[in-house]
Amino acid sequence: MIDISKEEYIKQTVEQYLREKSKIVDEAMQGYLASVNGSTEVLIEAMKYSLFAGGKRFRPTLVFASVELFDGDLEKAKLVASAIEMIHTYSLIHDDLPALDNDDFRRGKPTLHKVYGEAIALLAGDGLLTLAFELLGRTGHPEVVVEVAGSAGIKGMVGGQFMDLEAEGKQIPLQKLKEIHRLKTGSLITVSLRAGALISNAEKEDIETITEYGENLGIAFQIVDDILNVVGDAKKMGKPTGTDEKNKKSTYPFLLGVDKSRELALDHIKRAVDSLHKYDTRADPLRNLAWYVIYREK
Amino acid sequence: MIDISKEEYIKQTVEQYLREKSKIVDEAMQGYLASVNGSTEVLIEAMKYSLFAGGKRFRPTLVFASVELFDGDLEKAKLVASAIEMIHTYSLIHDDLPALDNDDFRRGKPTLHKVYGEAIALLAGDGLLTLAFELLGRTGHPEVVVEVAGSAGIKGMVGGQFMDLEAEGKQIPLQKLKEIHRLKTGSLITVSLRAGALISNAEKEDIETITEYGENLGIAFQIVDDILNVVGDAKKMGKPTGTDEKNKKSTYPFLLGVDKSRELALDHIKRAVDSLHKYDTRADPLRNLAWYVIYREK
Repeated sequence: MIDISKEEYIKQTVEQYLREKSKIVDEAMQGYLASVNGSTEVLIEAMKYSLFAGGKRFRPTLVFASVELFDGDLEKAKLVASAIEMIHTYSLIHDDLPALDNDDFRRGKPTLHKVYGEAIALLAGDGLLTLAFELLGRTGHPEVVVEVAGSAGIKGMVGGQFMDLEAEGKQIPLQKLKEIHRLKTGSLITVSLRAGALISNAEKEDIETITEYGENLGIAFQIVDDILNVVGDAKKMGKPTGTDEKNKKSTYPFLLGVDKSRELALDHIKRAVDSLHKYDTRADPLRNLAWYVIYREK
Repeated sequence: MIDISKEEYIKQTVEQYLREKSKIVDEAMQGYLASVNGSTEVLIEAMKYSLFAGGKRFRPTLVFASVELFDGDLEKAKLVASAIEMIHTYSLIHDDLPALDNDDFRRGKPTLHKVYGEAIALLAGDGLLTLAFELLGRTGHPEVVVEVAGSAGIKGMVGGQFMDLEAEGKQIPLQKLKEIHRLKTGSLITVSLRAGALISNAEKEDIETITEYGENLGIAFQIVDDILNVVGDAKKMGKPTGTDEKNKKSTYPFLLGVDKSRELALDHIKRAVDSLHKYDTRADPLRNLAWYVIYREK
C-alpha cells in the first residue's frame, strides 16, 4: 500500500469529483445551447468559446454537492449549475472588455473580444446572463431566481465589480477589500450552495448552515486567488501572475503579507468544515472541496 | 361642444393613459432602486440616469393594459412592468456603447457612457438586466421568468441585435428585415402582453389572442419607427432623424417606400384591433394603444 499525504489524497479526490460534475454540467449546457436558429450561429459559437474554455466548474460542483447533501433532484441541479456557470462566464467576458479590465488572455486562451470583437463579446455576455435566468425559471422555483439575481446584481457581483473599479489604483483598508470580495466573488459561491439547498427543499436550519459554509469558503477562495497571483505558477493557471502588484491592486498579500494571508484562509476553511459537523459522510464532498481551496495550484 | 378628429381623440386618450401608467411604474422602479448600500451609489445613479431619461413607458403600459383586461393583480403588474422597462433600458445602454452603435444622444440627452464612462455604462446595463429578473422572480410565477428571458435572450432581443449587427451596411431582403425586427423589438412587446396575461392567470385562448395582438402591434411599431426616422421631427423625438439612410440601414421605407410602409403598418394595426373583437370596453386601452402606434410622432 502506497501512503500519500492528506493533501495529495484531497487533491486527487476533489479533482476526480470536479471532473465528474464538469461532465454533467457541460453536457447539460451543450443541450441548452443546442436548439438554436441558424441566424445566430456565430453568437452561440462565441458564447460556447467562453463557456467551454476550460473552467474548473467550481460553482456548478458546489451546486451538485449541495443537492446531493440535501437529497434533491438532479435535473433541477443541472439547470441551476448551468445557470450559475453562465453567470460566472458572462461576468468574466464583460470584465475582460477594454472598457473594464482590458485583458487579452483568460485561462491560457485569447479573451472573447480578441477573437470575436467587442460587439459580439458584449452580446454574448448579455445572452449568457439572460439564458441563465431562463434556466433558473425552468426549475419552477421563483425564490431561486430571486436569490441568484440578488447575488449576481448590484447588491452582489455587479456591485462588487463596480466597487473594484472605484478602488482601482487606490490603497483601500482591509475592511473595504473584504466587502468587495464578499460581493464580487463570495456572493455567487454562497448562492450556488443556497440554491442547491432551496431546490432540494432543505430545512431553514440547513440553509443557514450551508450559508455559513459558503461564506467562509468564499472568503478563503478569494484570499487564495490573491496569493496565487503572487506566488502561483502562471503556466498551471493559464494566466499571468504578478498582475495585481503591477496594477497596484490592494490584495490580501499586499495588506497582510503572504504568510498571514495563508493563515487567514486556513482559518476560514476550518470554520467552513466545522459548520458541517452535524452531517454524516454525505457532506464529505463539501468538506474535501473546502480543503481543496487551500491546496489548489490554479 | 368642440368636435375633434378620431386621431386627435386617440392621441389625447392614450397620452393621458401613458402618463397614468408611467407614474405608477416610475414610482415602483424608484422603490425597487431605493434601499441600496452606499458604496454603489454612483452605479445606482447611472442606472437611474437612463431609466428616468424620459421614455414613453410603452411596454410597461402594455403590461398594465393586459393585466386590467384579465383582471390581474396590480402589485404583480408593477413588478413585471418595471422589469420589462429595465430590460428595455439595459438594451439601449449596451446598444449605444462604442462597441455597438456608438451613439452620443438618446431621447435628447447624452447617452450614459458619455456621462459616466463606458465601464459604468456596461455595469449599469448588467445591473438593470439582473434586477429585472429579481423582480420577475418576486411575482412567484417562474413561467413568466422563462417567457421574458426567452424573449429578451438569444432567441429574442439579443439574437435580433446580433442579426442587426451582422446586417450592417448590407442590403437585406424584406423577409430578413422582418425577422430582425420580430426578434429585436417585437418579442419584448409581445411578452409584455403575455406576461400580463400569465400573472393574471388568463385562459389559454386569451393568451393566444393577446399574442396575436402583440405580434401585429410589434410589427407596426417598428415600421412606424423606421418611417419616423425618415419623415419625423428630430426635435419631437429627441434624437436625430435620417440616421438609417446615413448608416445605409435596410428599413421598411428603404425597401418598400414610405407610402407602402404606412399601408403595411395600418394593415397590422387593423389586425391587432380585430383580434380583440371578443372583448368589451375593457379592451379599449389596448385598441387605443394600437391606433396610437400609427398616429404617434415620437
